[in-house]
Amino acid sequence: MHGMATINEEFFEFLRFQSISADPAFATHMESCAQWVVYKFTQMGFRVRLERAGGHPSVIAFGPRVEGAPTVLVYGHYDVQPVDPIHLWTSPPFEPRISNGKVYARGATDNKGQIFSHFIGSRSMVEAGGLPVNLVYLIEGEEEIGSPTLPAILKRLHTEIQPDIALVSDTGMIAPGHPTLTYSLRGIAALEVAVHGAATDLHSGIYGGVVANPALALCRLLSTLHDESGRVAIQGFYDNVLEPEEWERQMVRFLPIGEKELLAITGAPALTGEAGYLPLERTGARPTAEINGLGSGYQGPGSKTVIPAVAMAKLTFRLVPNQDPAVILALAEQHLRKHCPLGVSLEINLGHSGRSYFFDPRSPWGSLAQQALVRVFNKPGVACIREGGSIPIVSDFKNILGCETLLMGLALPDCRAHAPDENFPLEHINYGGMLHAELLRLAAQVRL
Amino acid sequence: MHGMATINEEFFEFLRFQSISADPAFATHMESCAQWVVYKFTQMGFRVRLERAGGHPSVIAFGPRVEGAPTVLVYGHYDVQPVDPIHLWTSPPFEPRISNGKVYARGATDNKGQIFSHFIGSRSMVEAGGLPVNLVYLIEGEEEIGSPTLPAILKRLHTEIQPDIALVSDTGMIAPGHPTLTYSLRGIAALEVAVHGAATDLHSGIYGGVVANPALALCRLLSTLHDESGRVAIQGFYDNVLEPEEWERQMVRFLPIGEKELLAITGAPALTGEAGYLPLERTGARPTAEINGLGSGYQGPGSKTVIPAVAMAKLTFRLVPNQDPAVILALAEQHLRKHCPLGVSLEINLGHSGRSYFFDPRSPWGSLAQQALVRVFNKPGVACIREGGSIPIVSDFKNILGCETLLMGLALPDCRAHAPDENFPLEHINYGGMLHAELLRLAAQVRL
Repeated sequence: MHGMATINEEFFEFLRFQSISADPAFATHMESCAQWVVYKFTQMGFRVRLERAGGHPSVIAFGPRVEGAPTVLVYGHYDVQPVDPIHLWTSPPFEPRISNGKVYARGATDNKGQIFSHFIGSRSMVEAGGLPVNLVYLIEGEEEIGSPTLPAILKRLHTEIQPDIALVSDTGMIAPGHPTLTYSLRGIAALEVAVHGAATDLHSGIYGGVVANPALALCRLLSTLHDESGRVAIQGFYDNVLEPEEWERQMVRFLPIGEKELLAITGAPALTGEAGYLPLERTGARPTAEINGLGSGYQGPGSKTVIPAVAMAKLTFRLVPNQDPAVILALAEQHLRKHCPLGVSLEINLGHSGRSYFFDPRSPWGSLAQQALVRVFNKPGVACIREGGSIPIVSDFKNILGCETLLMGLALPDCRAHAPDENFPLEHINYGGMLHAELLRLAAQVRL
Repeated sequence: MHGMATINEEFFEFLRFQSISADPAFATHMESCAQWVVYKFTQMGFRVRLERAGGHPSVIAFGPRVEGAPTVLVYGHYDVQPVDPIHLWTSPPFEPRISNGKVYARGATDNKGQIFSHFIGSRSMVEAGGLPVNLVYLIEGEEEIGSPTLPAILKRLHTEIQPDIALVSDTGMIAPGHPTLTYSLRGIAALEVAVHGAATDLHSGIYGGVVANPALALCRLLSTLHDESGRVAIQGFYDNVLEPEEWERQMVRFLPIGEKELLAITGAPALTGEAGYLPLERTGARPTAEINGLGSGYQGPGSKTVIPAVAMAKLTFRLVPNQDPAVILALAEQHLRKHCPLGVSLEINLGHSGRSYFFDPRSPWGSLAQQALVRVFNKPGVACIREGGSIPIVSDFKNILGCETLLMGLALPDCRAHAPDENFPLEHINYGGMLHAELLRLAAQVRL
């Protein structure tokens, strides 16, 4: 049996790997982290292998065969987001620190803490006598860069397993102590735009007035992305958007997260967004266009009076049913080219993308998930929500493996995923483990 | 006597100092560079001292007293611009390299090459028998950051010297072989604006749709700086602008720099700017608003899907007679606050500034400068131009020391001042030295 002290130490080991998938400089850290995960499952008696399709490896781990029982796929990822802006971290992102019952580290919530809690749940069942279902883990290394090679791996895996359901803990709880089932995720589509002007940076005194300034041109260009009411102004952007249904609009009114809570969580001076929708509808059921990064010219201390040669922006669109990421990227590119100011040239690179996901929480598997959440958290009901994040792979589970996905995340609203001081409550390792076990017990009773 | 080989080696020594005034990390390089300049003048028999007023030191060097002769002040600066983007340099910026008769290094043109050519001119006269005027050098270390402490130094210096004229070689030649007298400089006013949203970077999936994106807000804000015709849209910006006079508008038509030449020099896809003015009028006689730097969110490889907590821009305005930098900064701040989008807060930091300068090239000292240029370059005439760069100190010479300034620069249009691969033709050291000597000979004949 594993005590809490051992479990915490194991968790810290996992968190210390600098498994940043976006930056090639961290490739060896990625590899070591994957090997550590393999080792952990091997120790527990699972049949484990690394699967590669040209990118960072996925760990695939099979529990013992349980004849006649359903097959449950647990998915997670061992890669993490980059750590910039590093100077805003209270302590180094890869040196886990406990404070007020929370672990602070990059990946603490997203996704190492959550996938680790599944592992703890499985191990407790193995140690207590065995698993009641056919359990398969798929822990990939490219979630934070859009899972480019996972579909290829899923296609191979499909010849071996046909899961009845997938479990994913990579979403959030609506508030501490509120069990939450996420029944929809937004999709994503990314692109990078560069505005080129003169061949090199120019002296802004000598040439200011005759050549276009790419930074100014980029600002003018990106200011056309939204209209005055906060709607995305790209022609055709909303064409295939499904409005939320009436039962959803009713349900969202009873959730304990409104303007006040979101202001407190984010520290923003005011909420903004599309008129006509509640805040949680705007994050869950409505699409957006965001700038994730912007750069041009001199950003160091003091001043450098140049007209920059180039200015760039990283954009992502969050998508909802039934927007098609490829169509949205094409419309976005069209929009940018149409609105490109004079005197500069545009370079557009389309990035990763993934579809949105929707699985009715009133379905049999949805009800089963709600039952497990109620039992473990000992609450009268479950918050069923649409979440604004994207886990493109969930659509691939449906299309390639033929199974739906239950999204029961353990991230808290102030977990700071993707941001400095990311954190995860230590007790959520325990809750997650119990939830995992409860769900497998209920799943074992499902008639196939 | 000093041969060309020795002179080149001396010049290279000067260029190797990483005298970047904007970045505190280079403070010791600044100090060493100043000491080297002191040493050079001491060797030549000048009385030299370092003068400080809380910033980087200025070198002040006095030639021997020449009774009854005018006092000529030669001004230059030993500080240089930062070197970013460093990866665009063909060779390291502080390892001077000769190629096709040009020296490539940061500061080669701006201003080490040009001030060094004066030094060479002085030394040749000293070695040939003596200087015909009272010569004073003032070589400062803060030109690239707006000369914040130089006015204090000038006020002290004024008790010792009352120059009859100042010589500054920190401007450009209109084309190779075309002697050029700059009779006007634009002023400058700098500010930095930061747009603050949420307290930290946020996950753009989870919060996209309810909080303002500071990068988007900054783009919208900066897109209001200009109207559709390319004019600055800040209310009151043009109120005190003097239109160029008729003799100037005639003269500018005969200069050998038009659209074609500017396109070739800059490599820009097209020229832009304010309607109704020729290119050289737009750079010399019309004010501008430029973004020199822009930054927000994640700019590294790959993607990081955040809503940034902050976005910043470095802005400069180039000013013409009779715009007042303090008024312009106040108007700009007003404009930015008025147009600030909802959901974000603004932080504005006003930076350095300096007035524009104008000295009639048809004046007696202007004619003398043209005469010297004609003799040294052996050309029938001199291009008299307004230059778009700013040397705020030139207004201070007038206001504090009571003298006008002759601007006879040796920078070529493709010198890449402030940009990667900055360069200076070696033969301009020689031309500059001869011009310096010729000017002093003519100045010695001026009746005071």
